[in-house]
Amino acid sequence: MSLIVQKYGGTSVGDLERIQNVAKRIAKCVQTGTSLVIVVSAMTGETDHLTQMAEKITAKPNQREMDMLLSTGERVSIALLAMALQELGLSAQSFTGRQVGILTDSTHAQARIQEIQADRLEKALKEGIIPVVAGFQGINRQSDVTTLGRGGSDTTAVALATALKADLCEIYTDVDGVYTTDPNIVPEARRIHKISYEEMLEMASLGAKVLQTRSVEFAMKYHVPICVRSSFNDLGGTLVTTEDSEMEQELVSGITYDKNQAKVTLVGVPDRPGIAAMIFEAIAKENVNVDMIIQNVGQAGLTDLSFTIPNTDARRAKEILMALIEKLGVAEVALTEHISKVSIIGVGMRSHTGVAAKIFSSLAAEGINIMMISTSEIKVSCVIESKYTELAVRTLHEAFELGDKQEPQEESI
Amino acid sequence: MSLIVQKYGGTSVGDLERIQNVAKRIAKCVQTGTSLVIVVSAMTGETDHLTQMAEKITAKPNQREMDMLLSTGERVSIALLAMALQELGLSAQSFTGRQVGILTDSTHAQARIQEIQADRLEKALKEGIIPVVAGFQGINRQSDVTTLGRGGSDTTAVALATALKADLCEIYTDVDGVYTTDPNIVPEARRIHKISYEEMLEMASLGAKVLQTRSVEFAMKYHVPICVRSSFNDLGGTLVTTEDSEMEQELVSGITYDKNQAKVTLVGVPDRPGIAAMIFEAIAKENVNVDMIIQNVGQAGLTDLSFTIPNTDARRAKEILMALIEKLGVAEVALTEHISKVSIIGVGMRSHTGVAAKIFSSLAAEGINIMMISTSEIKVSCVIESKYTELAVRTLHEAFELGDKQEPQEESI
Repeated sequence: MSLIVQKYGGTSVGDLERIQNVAKRIAKCVQTGTSLVIVVSAMTGETDHLTQMAEKITAKPNQREMDMLLSTGERVSIALLAMALQELGLSAQSFTGRQVGILTDSTHAQARIQEIQADRLEKALKEGIIPVVAGFQGINRQSDVTTLGRGGSDTTAVALATALKADLCEIYTDVDGVYTTDPNIVPEARRIHKISYEEMLEMASLGAKVLQTRSVEFAMKYHVPICVRSSFNDLGGTLVTTEDSEMEQELVSGITYDKNQAKVTLVGVPDRPGIAAMIFEAIAKENVNVDMIIQNVGQAGLTDLSFTIPNTDARRAKEILMALIEKLGVAEVALTEHISKVSIIGVGMRSHTGVAAKIFSSLAAEGINIMMISTSEIKVSCVIESKYTELAVRTLHEAFELGDKQEPQEESI
Repeated sequence: MSLIVQKYGGTSVGDLERIQNVAKRIAKCVQTGTSLVIVVSAMTGETDHLTQMAEKITAKPNQREMDMLLSTGERVSIALLAMALQELGLSAQSFTGRQVGILTDSTHAQARIQEIQADRLEKALKEGIIPVVAGFQGINRQSDVTTLGRGGSDTTAVALATALKADLCEIYTDVDGVYTTDPNIVPEARRIHKISYEEMLEMASLGAKVLQTRSVEFAMKYHVPICVRSSFNDLGGTLVTTEDSEMEQELVSGITYDKNQAKVTLVGVPDRPGIAAMIFEAIAKENVNVDMIIQNVGQAGLTDLSFTIPNTDARRAKEILMALIEKLGVAEVALTEHISKVSIIGVGMRSHTGVAAKIFSSLAAEGINIMMISTSEIKVSCVIESKYTELAVRTLHEAFELGDKQEPQEESI
């Protein structure tokens, strides 16, 4: 008998009617003879509501207390969903992160799972009970409640699938799956039926918000296939799994973009060892993530150094560097906001050449200037002016013929 | 250094401003050098909100799931209050029922505390941390969340005071303390400064809603003094403690009433052994609590049997008995609704005679007929027609001179 871990996100359990619909979906699935473990998030808006209360009390909420507070959201969901399942005559039981043995480190708000003691979950499954597990939470060695950070319920689902050696981890959300690009920008965008962990990781970290990077890393490490699909229809979703021969035929799988980018340029940096280290240590100390870095060779022992960071951190980063400007011997710190990063992802790039050339020529034909480039084995990212983002995404989507193919017919579940 | 367990009820932490006020009250108390353990209820309305959601999903919510659901309310309160205390510069930490080692039996929704493993709480106190504990909840031996039933947070507070050998358990609520009777009916009602456990038990079980019976039983058993007081002012409240000589001077301490009463009369009951047992077994099986019972001696081997029950159960009780009418050989089942029970409580009755006589003559002087009477060592209860309730309470309050005395001056805390 197959075992599936199903995770339902906040919008899928957003109100009582939706919780009842999820229960019906689960009941249908149980009828096929599949064993299920359900993981749920807090009802939409609940986490925001709790966070707002905390922020009214203190500007800097203690992280341990925030975890205590936020972990209640998922507990409400599991109790209500378990009741809805029982109302349909199913044997279901709610479990907290602690009760299913999710042990984490003590980094409150960003805890990492260290171990899963799944005895109780296995016992419940043996007894024919459908366990309904609170996502996003665990406990540390001091028995304090911890939370796993944004998208943590995905991580819970994948981790439980790993621990239970489940056949599949289904992530139910409010979109049909992973698309070749944002359908809001490119109406011809196509749902991807199958994608490799590596590609999904790039997609996730480059801005496709459907799956959290950490859950994909986890799934890749333990070879758990993930299916991302909508809880509002019966489409087949997107299967995230190990790279196979079928995938390799695709040159490019998808295109992502990220508008939350800014470029910092240090003009006239003395070209001597240790300067770059000083700059990036100062930035890292303030928890600002540097993405791309470019250093131009300049004249007379001076260079220009540019790097990109999230736009939300831009002004803070500039302040940090302005404070160091004399110590660094830098002439000027320039900030360019309103830039975007557009990325092309595909495992096919490994075996095919000419992808980069095609990107450059396509964008050039539309008069779009590329300010920075970074590449990996399966990805090319370009930084461009923000106002060209949509045009660039549409141009590249067409150039790589991502929307052209006929959607294959597929059975609904 | 003295140790006080303070419990704040739902209205005391009813909104964010009130939570901040409670934090200030605690801060003031800490300045006097007292060690504190704080127990809190869910914010007013939260438990109702959660219950309503469950009831929309299922008519008969599973009790284990209800406990999982309802226990979130207190968790929100403890996190927010701990944050508010930290914001005032105090070292505070929230703890769930589980984290302070409250082990209960498995009677979900009505669990009883079996053991308290207070190591973690003691450690926190030693470290100078103010523990903020979720009331109303514990875990059973299977590590499932349980709740302690209505007023369970009072029980949590008293139980922790016992386990920690605290000097005092303060119950903060929205009233100033325990009154000689309901001030809404008798404006001259006086706050009682000191009352014995036994009297408080009678008061609580007879309708004074300020303290839950179980928490008083617990306090009496372990000799923990309780002080009931308002979180909205600095009045001294009511001290519930062991009976002492001062108390014995008071003939009567208080008068309570309960309008939720009904009388069932079985007319023409065959006067032979086993009939009464059949009647009360049938009633008990349906979880209806019988209070007073009266049997009149009748003629020709037939008697009349009357008993009182909560009015909310009256119609159900009648149905149960109507179904048995032939089997019992009873002529008629008569139901009298709209009756009230008025009770006079005082440890002084033990050593003073004439209390009952004074009650009967006072009520008779006002033309109030007494339908049933029951007495204990420290209590006399009379069943009367509901419409006379307020008149009876006022008459007795005056007859026993409960409102006459000058309120002694007392220092505020």
